[in-house]
This record gives sequence, structure tokens and C-alpha cells, in this order.
Amino acid sequence: MNFSNEQRDAVYEAIHNRRDIRRFLSTPLDETAIKRILLAGHHAPSVGFMQPWDFILVSSDSIKNELAAAADKERRALAIHFAAEGRDSKFLSLKVEGLREAPLTVCITCDPTRGGDHVLGRNSIPETDILSVACAIQNMWLAAYAEGIAMGWVSFYKKADVRRILNIPPHIDPTALLSFGYTDEYPDQPLLEKAGWAKRNSFDSLLHYDTWNNKDGSR
Amino acid sequence: MNFSNEQRDAVYEAIHNRRDIRRFLSTPLDETAIKRILLAGHHAPSVGFMQPWDFILVSSDSIKNELAAAADKERRALAIHFAAEGRDSKFLSLKVEGLREAPLTVCITCDPTRGGDHVLGRNSIPETDILSVACAIQNMWLAAYAEGIAMGWVSFYKKADVRRILNIPPHIDPTALLSFGYTDEYPDQPLLEKAGWAKRNSFDSLLHYDTWNNKDGSR
Repeated sequence: MNFSNEQRDAVYEAIHNRRDIRRFLSTPLDETAIKRILLAGHHAPSVGFMQPWDFILVSSDSIKNELAAAADKERRALAIHFAAEGRDSKFLSLKVEGLREAPLTVCITCDPTRGGDHVLGRNSIPETDILSVACAIQNMWLAAYAEGIAMGWVSFYKKADVRRILNIPPHIDPTALLSFGYTDEYPDQPLLEKAGWAKRNSFDSLLHYDTWNNKDGSR
Repeated sequence: MNFSNEQRDAVYEAIHNRRDIRRFLSTPLDETAIKRILLAGHHAPSVGFMQPWDFILVSSDSIKNELAAAADKERRALAIHFAAEGRDSKFLSLKVEGLREAPLTVCITCDPTRGGDHVLGRNSIPETDILSVACAIQNMWLAAYAEGIAMGWVSFYKKADVRRILNIPPHIDPTALLSFGYTDEYPDQPLLEKAGWAKRNSFDSLLHYDTWNNKDGSR
């Protein structure tokens, strides 16, 4: 736990430059790098050390096409909600997933039954199981960045569709679809910021001191 | 996005060696390091770029004591469940939080209303708001490791208690309490593994290929 400045800066570079990617090249992935990325996911923290995750590695074209069709249904459904706000044409111009192009998509799942009836620390806050899975996703994202591999998190789907396509048992949560591939477009800003869809909040506006209502850090 | 092997290894070292810590020294924290850790949280990915997080920095002793008392209630309540499994004495021997000792505890929250009525990508999977907060937590954990600062995630509390103690509005979720401090005990294994409470699952047992039921990667 004694990092040099160079090591520290590498961690921060991955954290600050990591992006959610939707355009992938068809170049095959380095399998040993993918193994390291998945292992980084498995070494995430988890509530009560329950390790609720599984990884379904999807590389079959026909299954990728089925997932892409399920995502496209959701995208068109969401456009209807944005139409009411007058934002549907902008929304529909965004590329929201790269499931067909990416050489590999990993469905990371959450098994809420793992670790028995009373998982230490999950008794009070049940959703700490999926929060653990999200920590695994973030580990994988940073590991992918360090490997020069782009990742995209797709959340445009109905869980029932993904369960059916991937034969996932009913009690297992298909928490996220994560696409991996090389890319020649790694933007320097979040895609939605670049597209003028949303802005980054000011850091200071998010800080509170001792209690919610105290916004003055000088005290 | 072109990391040297040394930079890549630094990211993996933080990922693999990061631990959940409950014993802290009273040494004051480096404030600029804490700022960088919080900023790493703010630069996490978030669904539809909604950035649902806020950070309440708790350093007042009286408020730390109130949080510790709320956590202790939950710890004793959970012991009753473990008693039925004959694991209560082992459970009660574990130190599950360091809220009183840690110089700083950050309550990271989730505002589900941020970003308007229809957040891109959250329409299908509403809990992607708290998953985004968990990504911020993992960024902070790895940043803390890179800074030589220990972090502990406390989930032993009733949200109503933490809302009352920190004056958090009813619609805001107090997702986690994160304690920060220096430590002289940074274990090489997860605390619960070291204590014989739970084991790490084998990596291969978590891998599936194309569909859930296919466990054979050789294809």
C-alpha cells in the first residue's frame, strides 16, 4: 500500500479518462487480457464477502443479435417518453449500444441467495448485493481501460428478455450487459456530455459538511 | 488510453490489494488527498450521466458517535439472526465498523430525482441510480488505496436513523457510510476470509459461455 506518484497517477488516469463506449472494431480480443479483466471483477468488494456475481461470456453472433434486438425494443420504447419532452429526435440520434459489433458481451448477474439467509451487512440494506456487482463492473471498466480495451454498459433491456435469451434462472438478476472491444474512438468527455444531452455537475455543489444542510466547508 | 505495463500493473495492484478496513489511526488526513478521492467518486460513470451522488463529510465527534450508536444497534440486531445459526459468538467477535475512530466518514447518497423524469438508460432498470453510486464508491476505494488511505464501507444501519442524524431529506437514499483514515493493519486477505467467516469462490465456477447452462469454455 505504498504507491509511487507514478502508480497513483495511473489509477487516477484510468478513473478520469474511462468512457462508456458504443463503437467497437471487429478485431479479436486478447483472451488473456479478458481473463484479467474478469478476475478484476471477481476481486471487487462484496457485502459479507458474498461474491454474488456470475459472468456469462457471449460471443455467439446469433445470441448477440437477439440481445441487440431486445435492446432496440427498449430504445424505441424510451423514445416515446422522450417525444413528450420534445427530445426524441436527439435521443434517437444517439448510439446507445454496440452489442452487435462488440466481439464480446458479458452479462454480469447477481445471485441474491448466495451466502445463505443472513449475509453479514446485507441484513440491514438488502440491495448491497447489486451494489457489490456494480463495484465489480467498475473494477472491470478500469481494468479494461488499463488493457487498452473499450467497455460499454448497456441497460436498455427488459430483464425477462435477457433471462430468456441467456437461459438465466428466474431468481438470478441480469444486472448489466457489458460490451468489450477495441475502438478507434475513445472520447475525452462522456458521450452524453459531448452530445449536449447532459452536463457535469459542479463538484462543490455535491459537498456537504457534517449534515445535509451545511454547505459551508470553512466552518 | 495507452498504458505502459507499469501503469497497468498499478491499476491491478489497487484492485487486488484493496481491503475493507475497520481499524483506523487518529492521525489527521491529508485534505488534498481526500479532495482527490472525492473527485474520483464524482468521475464515476452514471446512468444517463445523472450523477445522482452527494457527499456528506462527517468529522464532528458528536455526529460520529451518533452514527456509531446507530450501527451498533444494527450489529446487535443481526447477532440475534446469527444466534439461530449458532454463529453469533463468532459474529460478535468481528469488528464491523470503525466509525468512532476514523477521522472522516463520508455518507454518499443517491438522489433518484436527479436528471428529470426519464433518465436515459434508467427507464428500463430503475436501480441503475444506486448502481452508479456504487461505481463512485469503488472509484473512491481504489483512489484511497493509491493515496495510502484506508477505507471501510459500513452498511450496518437503518436508513431512517442515518437520515435523522444527518438531516437527509426523505427522498434521498443514504447509500453508504465510508470511513477514511490511516491504518497500521492493512491485511493481505479480506477480513471475513481471514476470520474464517467466508471463502473466496473459485473463479472458474463463475464463468458461463453464451448461455447460463454452458459451463464449458473450450467449445
